[in-house]
Amino acid sequence: MPAPALTAEEIGELLHKVFPQAFYPGCGLTLERVDYGDVRVRREFHENHLRPGGTISGPTMMELADFTMYVAVFSAIGRQPLAVTTNLNINFLRKPAQAALIADARLMKVGKRLAVGEVTIYSEGSEEPVAHVTSTYSIP
Amino acid sequence: MPAPALTAEEIGELLHKVFPQAFYPGCGLTLERVDYGDVRVRREFHENHLRPGGTISGPTMMELADFTMYVAVFSAIGRQPLAVTTNLNINFLRKPAQAALIADARLMKVGKRLAVGEVTIYSEGSEEPVAHVTSTYSIP
Amino acid sequence: MPAPALTAEEIGELLHKVFPQAFYPGCGLTLERVDYGDVRVRREFHENHLRPGGTISGPTMMELADFTMYVAVFSAIGRQPLAVTTNLNINFLRKPAQAALIADARLMKVGKRLAVGEVTIYSEGSEEPVAHVTSTYSIP
Amino acid sequence: MPAPALTAEEIGELLHKVFPQAFYPGCGLTLERVDYGDVRVRREFHENHLRPGGTISGPTMMELADFTMYVAVFSAIGRQPLAVTTNLNINFLRKPAQAALIADARLMKVGKRLAVGEVTIYSEGSEEPVAHVTSTYSIP
Repeated sequence: MPAPALTAEEIGELLHKVFPQAFYPGCGLTLERVDYGDVRVRREFHENHLRPGGTISGPTMMELADFTMYVAVFSAIGRQPLAVTTNLNINFLRKPAQAALIADARLMKVGKRLAVGEVTIYSEGSEEPVAHVTSTYSIP
Repeated sequence: MPAPALTAEEIGELLHKVFPQAFYPGCGLTLERVDYGDVRVRREFHENHLRPGGTISGPTMMELADFTMYVAVFSAIGRQPLAVTTNLNINFLRKPAQAALIADARLMKVGKRLAVGEVTIYSEGSEEPVAHVTSTYSIP
Repeated sequence: MPAPALTAEEIGELLHKVFPQAFYPGCGLTLERVDYGDVRVRREFHENHLRPGGTISGPTMMELADFTMYVAVFSAIGRQPLAVTTNLNINFLRKPAQAALIADARLMKVGKRLAVGEVTIYSEGSEEPVAHVTSTYSIP
Repeated sequence: MPAPALTAEEIGELLHKVFPQAFYPGCGLTLERVDYGDVRVRREFHENHLRPGGTISGPTMMELADFTMYVAVFSAIGRQPLAVTTNLNINFLRKPAQAALIADARLMKVGKRLAVGEVTIYSEGSEEPVAHVTSTYSIP
């Protein structure tokens, strides 16, 4: 596996600069691991994420998956903040616990025009995934 | 087409009661039309929705699509706040304007266990869709 | 709506020339309508399409949807037989009858690099769709 | 991991009995491995699978993915031939070689009503996937 194009720290700085409403101190997101096309992001639990039934809402998980793919794209192709999602497909598998979410993204293809990856989301401390995502980014 | 199971006003009250963090006065969402399995929701533009490139972020559109499907499910099967998304697939088609978003949801199937629908999202004032979603809800 | 880039007859000739194992006299597929980015294909019923339960198999419908999108792409961008599917998402909605299938495809976006469309499949003589597809083609 | 509900041989016999047009001696499909919710199917190369560009057609891969998921469902829940696909999402990643296809399916959830899995397809002898699928089966 090649080295990542950017380190976790570099990606964090880039995100804070270009997308400050999504990534800022105290936003609850941590880049826990950044390898080439293979990253982990942790989202702290917050009561605002709950939906009826006492479970974490779907949009909270979709946002986390999209963010984690964005980080994975940077890890493979470097500073391309204008990369945009063209497709995202999510299957919700289990009711998440009222706990932090862990998202593992892995790119399956890094082409000139498109990057395709999958993201698996877990409740922290559990081994059964709560959601699985595949997503395509278009590279400018 | 049958009459909707609930009116827009009734759905608004239900949402505010069971999901107050998503639907409250000033949240920027309006239920513009509620027919049976066929609804329109408007989301006001807010600068917080922007992402790099000056366009509305993907998660903003995914959240709107999921919310609009939830309203469509209520319009067909009534008070079932524990209905949950099992699958959502979104294609991003065009860069949205810095304007309100209009989401039209239409159920294609209302079964005993699953409801399947599609949502088309527009920038207000434009006829070309900015995103298209299909989604499945599981009915408890 | 602009005129189609190719007529039904021209697309039929192109398909028979470049993809003879999919489209040949007696193959059971008919291009019933070709407008710009908006086409209808009919597939005759054949017992080989049945699966357990006496219903038409999923792959039969996926193949028809993919073929119909291919025709829709030709209707919009002309002779590009090397256009290839990059994503296809199908929801199966109802058990099809033992009857011909009708597939209506409609492009939602025709870009320089990608075309995105949806396909709705019906059992002939019924108004309720049996399957709904969204798909993306990459344009060479 | 629990033992599989059925062995490869038992699943082969079941398939041949209930779905003889899909699985019969000489059909080109081999059940190479059957563990619980984790199976491998091999499809022999055949010239009929080619599409313009000299590559294996999308429907060939979709059919293989759907078949492999069907086998995976049997491996987890036993003789349920009326299990049906409700959703299938495929991303085509690379041009397949003119070689056999290997499909690895893995169930991510086995519920009472739904089973959800992913399928990764390779050209035999290559480590880079040519397609990735997620799919949901409804259990009767």
